[in-house]
Amino acid sequence: MPNVPPHTVGAVGESALLARIAQRAPRPPNDEIWSGDDAAQLRLGDRTLVATDFVVEGTDFRPEWSSGADVGWKALAINVSDIAAMGGRPTHALVSVAMPPDLLLETFDSLLDGTLAGCDEWDIALVGGDLGENDRLFVSVTIVGAGGPRTVTRAGARPGDAICVTGSLGGSAAGLAALEAGLDSADDRWSAAIARHLRPLPRVEEGPAIVAAGATSMIDISDGFGRDLLRLLSASGAGCEVSSADLRVDPAAIAVADATGGDASTWAFAGGEDFELLFTCPEASLEDVSMRVPVTRIGTVTEGPRIVDDGVLEDREELGWDHLRTDRSR
Amino acid sequence: MPNVPPHTVGAVGESALLARIAQRAPRPPNDEIWSGDDAAQLRLGDRTLVATDFVVEGTDFRPEWSSGADVGWKALAINVSDIAAMGGRPTHALVSVAMPPDLLLETFDSLLDGTLAGCDEWDIALVGGDLGENDRLFVSVTIVGAGGPRTVTRAGARPGDAICVTGSLGGSAAGLAALEAGLDSADDRWSAAIARHLRPLPRVEEGPAIVAAGATSMIDISDGFGRDLLRLLSASGAGCEVSSADLRVDPAAIAVADATGGDASTWAFAGGEDFELLFTCPEASLEDVSMRVPVTRIGTVTEGPRIVDDGVLEDREELGWDHLRTDRSR
Repeated sequence: MPNVPPHTVGAVGESALLARIAQRAPRPPNDEIWSGDDAAQLRLGDRTLVATDFVVEGTDFRPEWSSGADVGWKALAINVSDIAAMGGRPTHALVSVAMPPDLLLETFDSLLDGTLAGCDEWDIALVGGDLGENDRLFVSVTIVGAGGPRTVTRAGARPGDAICVTGSLGGSAAGLAALEAGLDSADDRWSAAIARHLRPLPRVEEGPAIVAAGATSMIDISDGFGRDLLRLLSASGAGCEVSSADLRVDPAAIAVADATGGDASTWAFAGGEDFELLFTCPEASLEDVSMRVPVTRIGTVTEGPRIVDDGVLEDREELGWDHLRTDRSR
Repeated sequence: MPNVPPHTVGAVGESALLARIAQRAPRPPNDEIWSGDDAAQLRLGDRTLVATDFVVEGTDFRPEWSSGADVGWKALAINVSDIAAMGGRPTHALVSVAMPPDLLLETFDSLLDGTLAGCDEWDIALVGGDLGENDRLFVSVTIVGAGGPRTVTRAGARPGDAICVTGSLGGSAAGLAALEAGLDSADDRWSAAIARHLRPLPRVEEGPAIVAAGATSMIDISDGFGRDLLRLLSASGAGCEVSSADLRVDPAAIAVADATGGDASTWAFAGGEDFELLFTCPEASLEDVSMRVPVTRIGTVTEGPRIVDDGVLEDREELGWDHLRTDRSR
């Protein structure tokens, strides 16, 4: 018999964990079936959105910086952001967790706290999931959402459209840099950047509002402004003229850059995980958009090529990063 | 720069893998949006089923026995079975893969082969997913399905109902035992058991047919007959009188038991992963059920207690297994 430390998920087992979740999860309305059966049954429409994304310990978060609650929140948030980027609203989530048997029960409960806090924040029903083993903590989320009256993809940008971004960029990368540098997370100068990295706030209200105001294409900035701009333009078969100096840099990123010797502009351009929305809209819609959502215009869609500042977007060095590729030089 | 072996997923990177998938995936109809954007948009109804389950190398499969194609097929199959157990039909899938960067590209392609073969077999559209890193190969699937005119849960069994099982049991556990014993997988005596373990065939047609014939409750047998019977009866708040001698044992399991010294009856009772359907129906519906689907009646629902053979179901030793629990004695 292996010696299992008490207060770990391996000591209590899957059935007990499922009971722990069931105890805290709300009950479904009469016409839906949630967790506890072979599948969930949901009332959905003919414009239903679904997105899935996972986070893994070591690659996407470090346990010394992220609490279980942070991980649960962020795993939901990155998916909620995908639904917002299509102009929809999240409605249901399936959350699967794979974990080492010696994970502390306390960490599991904290993960559940963060997941339920996110569900509460964004009005999402937790309707299913799966539990199992992995060497590292692994959280996979599938979000179901309701599409708005119109769905906007990455593919609709037209020459002449304005290119805009919500909020400010670089905060999440700066938060990570602050953690890596061991800066005091309670210090007002960078606590906002650290919070942004650990507990991102996707643009749930802004997504549908931007679509209603006439957006022609949209993407959430998860892998960095440069990469996501390239994705949007590639999907649209379009070019651009963009001034990166017009990007709004998160003020907290500037403070972290001062303290760590990092570069706030690089974080804003390439950092990723800011979960702002990058979108295009006709010039004529710009005023309507701005009345609904504070946005920054950073350029114009063209027929091509893709020009950022004085160079070609595809040539920017910061675009080299890839989730899986181990040889960054290629 | 790390030295990355060629022909691995880490050498080509995520973008190239996504392109590989896109190349082979069919195009969506006009009113749907599939892979390649922030979220997929699907036409779904007010009785939509969703289920999610993952498989992990080492725990759920071993690379020396399962090809990539086997893993891709099985990860889909276990979810398809969940939809069938509610009386629905699968329509869409999201498939996420986490893998070590040194996974051979050949294995990735094989995984994609198996996934697409399953999608083809069960008429499922592959509409999204996520790729990333993990030490072990990890495949997480979310299946979306269309509920039938009536959905059957685990909770509807009523005293007096007949308890029935489709097909035969023990084949998958026997297949695993055959692999563990190093039996020749080409030998006719156990090739069927091994195939059943590596490439399970969920009861996609039988599920909806059984519901149409009047089933009152249903579950798929994924964790073993005994455990899944207990789950169904617990959800229904009911008891039973069951004769385990009436369970149909997979003939291939008997052959493997002869060769390995294993026990085919134990595999049938507790083995799991057979993906047969366990259901209840009124006596009056039994004939209608049997005309549509070959089933074996193994007992009757009672008000309680839960009697199997001469003992109480909850006391059966074979029920001790738990996905996560490391101390099996508790």
